[in-house]
Amino acid sequence: MSLLVVGSVAFDAVETPFGKCEKMLGGSTSHFSISASYFTKVRIVGVVGGDFGNDEQKVFDAHGIDTTDLERIAEGNTFRWRGRYDYDLNVAHTLETQLNVFANFKPKLSEEAKRSRLVFLGNIQPELQREVREQVKGAELVALDTMNLWIETTRSSLQKAIETVHLLVINDAEARQLTEEPVLIKAARKILSWGPRSVIVKRGEYGAAMFTQDSYFAIPAYPLESVFDPTGAGDTFAGGLMGYLDSQEKLDDAAMRRAMIFGSVMASFNVEEFGTQRVERLTHNEINDRFHAFKTFTHFEELPFVRA
Amino acid sequence: MSLLVVGSVAFDAVETPFGKCEKMLGGSTSHFSISASYFTKVRIVGVVGGDFGNDEQKVFDAHGIDTTDLERIAEGNTFRWRGRYDYDLNVAHTLETQLNVFANFKPKLSEEAKRSRLVFLGNIQPELQREVREQVKGAELVALDTMNLWIETTRSSLQKAIETVHLLVINDAEARQLTEEPVLIKAARKILSWGPRSVIVKRGEYGAAMFTQDSYFAIPAYPLESVFDPTGAGDTFAGGLMGYLDSQEKLDDAAMRRAMIFGSVMASFNVEEFGTQRVERLTHNEINDRFHAFKTFTHFEELPFVRA
Repeated sequence: MSLLVVGSVAFDAVETPFGKCEKMLGGSTSHFSISASYFTKVRIVGVVGGDFGNDEQKVFDAHGIDTTDLERIAEGNTFRWRGRYDYDLNVAHTLETQLNVFANFKPKLSEEAKRSRLVFLGNIQPELQREVREQVKGAELVALDTMNLWIETTRSSLQKAIETVHLLVINDAEARQLTEEPVLIKAARKILSWGPRSVIVKRGEYGAAMFTQDSYFAIPAYPLESVFDPTGAGDTFAGGLMGYLDSQEKLDDAAMRRAMIFGSVMASFNVEEFGTQRVERLTHNEINDRFHAFKTFTHFEELPFVRA
Repeated sequence: MSLLVVGSVAFDAVETPFGKCEKMLGGSTSHFSISASYFTKVRIVGVVGGDFGNDEQKVFDAHGIDTTDLERIAEGNTFRWRGRYDYDLNVAHTLETQLNVFANFKPKLSEEAKRSRLVFLGNIQPELQREVREQVKGAELVALDTMNLWIETTRSSLQKAIETVHLLVINDAEARQLTEEPVLIKAARKILSWGPRSVIVKRGEYGAAMFTQDSYFAIPAYPLESVFDPTGAGDTFAGGLMGYLDSQEKLDDAAMRRAMIFGSVMASFNVEEFGTQRVERLTHNEINDRFHAFKTFTHFEELPFVRA
């Protein structure tokens, strides 16, 4: 099976109350693909500069990630982001953004990429997402991520992009902002009315929820003692979700539910260390252990009340 | 079996973006006992004034609630609260509080009340909670609720009260405030170290979580299209929780988990109409239907990932 992700590859510099890291592999594509690589074969479409070296390439190689469609512009620099988190680790404060080669990014898909079974359109301009979507007409499931910037600046183009995909993955504040609906279930229903057959809403420390025309599924988050660096948690979630789905023959509701758990498991590891560090060295046992923990801490017996 | 609740009985006046109600039965004891009455026999300890009439008494009577220990001060008035909710229904704005007879409330327990199997110490001054706790030494499970006012004004007395109970029911902002621990799991662990064997944290639209020394359980909330009036949701949750527990012979982890679901079910009904209106006319079928819905929207198959 085959999974394609399109988005940013970046160097991140992050400060948190617990430490700082000057330069680490980041961007939606990196977090997504490393996470997904535990479940399936991933191919990435993105762009990097001459400063993207062997150390970074080795990370992708070690996870069997196909970088054939990763464009390299030797005379340019890779996208850089610098951010800070205070004690409220839910809010990233952007200190500096250097788009560099990412400023003129035009995703170029090889013929093989165009035949991918599953596609994740990472958080880039909606017009680019639509251009990619056009080229993967045969994909069984196309998912899209976005952010407040595109909701605020390119809302109608974003809505058109959403109309063309099967699944929207979005955080709860963005879902409300996008639909101007404060009640989440109404926000989700509005998005479903535009075209997607599923909406997955990420709620950070409160878990995630999935809405379809005829079903609803909600899970709490894995309980963490400490969140060290939340950068990339959303893309790591999406990577686990889509990676797991691509490992399954049937993309039915039951598979989607398990995929949400695996996505949550991967995100829970991601935030424990800087950048992709923790997720880079996971084992399948560690992943399955947390999957099992999810079952343990959400299970209850279905015994209706009967008056004595 | 027998369940005792101590707390306020009030007349509430509430304005929401969807309507207003000038005078309705409220207070922690009312919400709690009506909710609990669907599962067990409840006895209330509280105080009302001469303005507490037949209409209010009939509500308690209709639910088989034992009001023998409800003190009546004919020459005084019942506690009154007036509040407003804006579109963010999570935040209650208090417009007016008239403590009236509640200002000098001293809970008086009959001999029968003192022999209750389960006791809920509703949100009143911690010193009064401790006085009641002293009188129900043989209770199998004593639970305590509180609010930010007591955390801010009587913290050490509150902590002493918490030390004496089996279960603390608290909302998440209060748990963090009480322990000065931003990470919920650490806040819960601190509270457990004071004495309680369980802490249940209410998270509003995000559900609820239960922490014990050796287990964790978390559930999302019932997905609601509209929240009409959130007043009393926390007490209604506690009423379903404690009422269900009192209907069970064994108060083990499995019963506690089911009790949290029943508590959430009752709270989900509570917010659909003003005050206690919706909960007053529930059927056991409606309650069990939502219990079943919880199973449906949280269920997933436990299939570990196996690489193909």
